[in-house]
Amino acid sequence: MPVPIRFGLLRVVLVATRNPLNLGAAARAMSNFGFTHLRVVHPYSPAYREARSAVGASHVLNEAEEYSSVAEAVADCSLVVGTTAAARRELHHPLKRLEHGARLIRKQLGGSRRVALLFGSEKKGLSNEDFSHCHWLLHIPTCEENVSMNLGQAVAVCLYELVRDAKAPAQSDKEAPATAGDVERINAMLTEVLRASGYLGRRSPKDSADRIRRLVRRLKLPARDVSYWLGILRQIAWKLGTRKDVAP
Amino acid sequence: MPVPIRFGLLRVVLVATRNPLNLGAAARAMSNFGFTHLRVVHPYSPAYREARSAVGASHVLNEAEEYSSVAEAVADCSLVVGTTAAARRELHHPLKRLEHGARLIRKQLGGSRRVALLFGSEKKGLSNEDFSHCHWLLHIPTCEENVSMNLGQAVAVCLYELVRDAKAPAQSDKEAPATAGDVERINAMLTEVLRASGYLGRRSPKDSADRIRRLVRRLKLPARDVSYWLGILRQIAWKLGTRKDVAP
Repeated sequence: MPVPIRFGLLRVVLVATRNPLNLGAAARAMSNFGFTHLRVVHPYSPAYREARSAVGASHVLNEAEEYSSVAEAVADCSLVVGTTAAARRELHHPLKRLEHGARLIRKQLGGSRRVALLFGSEKKGLSNEDFSHCHWLLHIPTCEENVSMNLGQAVAVCLYELVRDAKAPAQSDKEAPATAGDVERINAMLTEVLRASGYLGRRSPKDSADRIRRLVRRLKLPARDVSYWLGILRQIAWKLGTRKDVAP
Repeated sequence: MPVPIRFGLLRVVLVATRNPLNLGAAARAMSNFGFTHLRVVHPYSPAYREARSAVGASHVLNEAEEYSSVAEAVADCSLVVGTTAAARRELHHPLKRLEHGARLIRKQLGGSRRVALLFGSEKKGLSNEDFSHCHWLLHIPTCEENVSMNLGQAVAVCLYELVRDAKAPAQSDKEAPATAGDVERINAMLTEVLRASGYLGRRSPKDSADRIRRLVRRLKLPARDVSYWLGILRQIAWKLGTRKDVAP
């Protein structure tokens, strides 16, 4: 049984973000996935003002809390996780792939503990000092050729991993298949059409009839489409003159 | 055993995209997750030109193929999947959550079959005509309050789900714990400091010593940090005058 996530316990912390579009995008992803508490640590001020005053700025962004240090922004959290592209620098912290890290974060949130998830600036990511406030680091499994993700996209992917549910019931969107009887009716009508059209000769071998039946069966006809197909075939049969007496 | 994905077989198809930033963001996410084949169907021309001429426009974007219809863009694919926020309109297609849909897509890619993954325009998404080219539709499990994702973020999340690997070995980033002997040495040094500082009296009950030992043990000291802590405690002990003879 997966532990239910308490979304309200996650603090997304954006450190030194410079681009207002990224602030907006991060807030939008939070709102998409049901997270509400955004904290910003010395953001580039014009960007922050611009993002907040943008048309349609989200509730999340308007309610964001501003801090002047990472220490203050994470003070009330019992787990602090930094994100990193983990590319060039040597890390002094345990590094976990998102798939595993998210599981640990979920566990904390399920246990009613507050978790801070930190994202660094677009250009430099989190600093070593920022890292020193973290219990461990998280990285998204990107390709070695291009590890550096756009900030808004990285936030979206991390939050998605937190809410994704491997065990969510598959929607029962499977089409009910046509019954064998319906398939046979279509098969009969199709055969009639094929004879009328000359595709099957009057004395076609039994083989041909079987082949047609197999073709029809392999279509996996949905039950709800049977009457449409019968209608279509009847119309063609009528036009071909096999049923001169009645219009379909 | 998960089937290995053939990234080269996926076609990301952006239909009628208007914002050059989104074209760039989609291409960036593709490059992050190792997908290379981007197709665009009648994009808003100035946006497409702007995105391709942008500084640092990715290889993916420069190699993108342009089509004038969805039919042409998906003609060589054996599975065509549309994405939708699945909000307002009635759908005539099976709808699958990303977690399940991605599994089906992976199966196709693993079986050497080409798959097209369609994303609609920022404002309207995919049209019913676009949908009619799709075998089924995919939706990202967003909150009902805000189902509509930013295009670049939606692409990133879908591609991440395709490459994520639930069975990827957890990094063996676990710290080797200090041995019981090391913990006891630290405990002894700490006790010495606590006596010298007056925190523990000369005749503290045995209880107190046990409590200190439990405190130290609960720290889960990593093996590699033992010498640092011993050094720190020695320095304090020296300063407190318990070891007047030797500087640490």
